[in-house]
Amino acid sequence: MITLAALQMKSKSGDVAANLARIEQAAKEAAATGASLLVMPELGLTGYGAGDVIRDLAEPADGPLVTRLQAISAETGIAIIAGFAEKADGTIFNSAVYVDGPAAPVVYRKSNLYGDYERALFAAAEPSTVLFDHRGVRCGMLICYDVEFPENVRRLALAGADAVLVPTALPAGYSGTFIADHMIRTRAFENQVFVAYINHCGADERFTFAGSSRVAAPDGSLLASAASHGEALMIVSLDPADFQVSKTENTYITDLIRRA
Amino acid sequence: MITLAALQMKSKSGDVAANLARIEQAAKEAAATGASLLVMPELGLTGYGAGDVIRDLAEPADGPLVTRLQAISAETGIAIIAGFAEKADGTIFNSAVYVDGPAAPVVYRKSNLYGDYERALFAAAEPSTVLFDHRGVRCGMLICYDVEFPENVRRLALAGADAVLVPTALPAGYSGTFIADHMIRTRAFENQVFVAYINHCGADERFTFAGSSRVAAPDGSLLASAASHGEALMIVSLDPADFQVSKTENTYITDLIRRA
Repeated sequence: MITLAALQMKSKSGDVAANLARIEQAAKEAAATGASLLVMPELGLTGYGAGDVIRDLAEPADGPLVTRLQAISAETGIAIIAGFAEKADGTIFNSAVYVDGPAAPVVYRKSNLYGDYERALFAAAEPSTVLFDHRGVRCGMLICYDVEFPENVRRLALAGADAVLVPTALPAGYSGTFIADHMIRTRAFENQVFVAYINHCGADERFTFAGSSRVAAPDGSLLASAASHGEALMIVSLDPADFQVSKTENTYITDLIRRA
Repeated sequence: MITLAALQMKSKSGDVAANLARIEQAAKEAAATGASLLVMPELGLTGYGAGDVIRDLAEPADGPLVTRLQAISAETGIAIIAGFAEKADGTIFNSAVYVDGPAAPVVYRKSNLYGDYERALFAAAEPSTVLFDHRGVRCGMLICYDVEFPENVRRLALAGADAVLVPTALPAGYSGTFIADHMIRTRAFENQVFVAYINHCGADERFTFAGSSRVAAPDGSLLASAASHGEALMIVSLDPADFQVSKTENTYITDLIRRA
C-alpha cells in the first residue's frame, strides 16, 4: 500500500524556477499527509505551451534540474514524478522522471506525440516499458497521448505494473472531457491497474487545459477526481490488495497470458 | 449511411423456434422503420444460459437454422446478425452470423471465451478479422468478452471497419454496469468507429443479464441506450461522415498507420 499525492497544477510558462518552487511546496504538503509519491503534469517544469523556449530549457537527465528535484525529494522525504524536456542522443524528448532522494532517477520518454506542436518540438521515442518499484508497488509511466492508446497500458500491465502514472496536458473541449470521464477509467479496468492521470489547469499562451485530473482504481472506480478549473492536491491510498474481487472477475491479463 | 436496428431481447432458453419467431417479428418491425440491419444478442437463437442443450442445438453455418434466417431476411427485406452455436471442424463454436437474403452468410467465431461455463461448452476460435460491406458501411463482428479486449476492436479498425457489431450476454452487476457505461464508449472513441453492443435482458436458469445495450458513435457519444430491464428495439442512423471532426481530432488509427 502506498499513499499517492497528485498535483493538478497551473505551471508558469517557461519559468522553471517558479515551477520548482511550486513543486517543493506541494512536496512538503504531500509529505506531511504521509504520501510517499507526488505526481505532476506533463512538462510541468517548463510549462506545456511555452513553445520553442522549451528546447532551450531542455537538460540531460543527469543535469542540474533533475539534481535539484532529487534534492527536493531528499529534503521533503517524498518521491516525485515530474515532466521535463530531456536533452539526449542529440535531440529532445518529452520525458517524465521519477526521483526518490539520491537514488538513480528513472526516466520515461513519450512515444506518441500529438499533433504538429509536439512534433515540431520533440523526437518521438520508441515505445518503452519502464517499470520501477515504489515501496512495494510496481509502477510504470506514460505521458498524455500515450495513455490514449490501449497498447501502451497493456504493455505495462503484461510486464507486471500495479499502477501507471501519467503526467498529461489535456486541452479543454469535448474530447478532453470524454478522455477524463471514460477512457482513463477504462484503461484502469481493462488492465486491472491503478491509473493516475494528472493534468494542468488554466491556460498558457497556446492552450486552455481541461483540468479534470483522475486517479482510477483497478475496478475502474475513481479514487480522486479534480475539477475542470483550479489547482488541486489529491491524496489517495493505492492498495492492490483491495481489488482482488475485481481481478478475479475481470481476468484480462491472466487470460492473455494463459493463451500466449 | 445505414439505419441499424438493435434488439435487446429476452431469449427463451433452449427454444430455437420461439426465438426465431421473435426475430421474425422484430425483423418485420425494424424493416418497417427503414432499417437495413437487425442485430441481436449472443446465442440469441439458443438462449445463453441453456447449458449442455446448446451443444445439441448446434448446427453448421449451412444448416437449416441459418437457411431459415436467410429466408426471414429475404421475406422481411432486412439483413440480420444473430448469435448461434456453430458445429464445425469437429467442435462447437460460439458464433454470430450475418445474413442478407440469399447471399452467402458471413460467420464470426468468438475467440475470447469467458469463464468455466463457456469453456466447457465451446472451443475458442483464433482471433479473426471478418469484415463485410453492408450498404457501403464496412462492418466487423465480435462477441461479448471479445470486445472487452482492446486488441480485437483495434484489429478490425486497422483493417478498415467503420462499425463493429457485438452480440453479447453481459451479466448484471458492478462490472457489467462499468462495461456498458464506460468501456463500450471508449472502444468506439479510441478507434473512431461505431460500436453496437446488444445484450439479453431478464434472467434464464443460470444468469441474470445487465440489459443496458448500447450503440456508441465514433466520438464516444451514445446514439442509443437501453434500460437494464426489459426488451427494447432501438433504431438509429449510422453515418461515418457525421464524425469527420472527431476523426480529425482523434488520430489514433492514422497515427498508428503512419508509424508502422
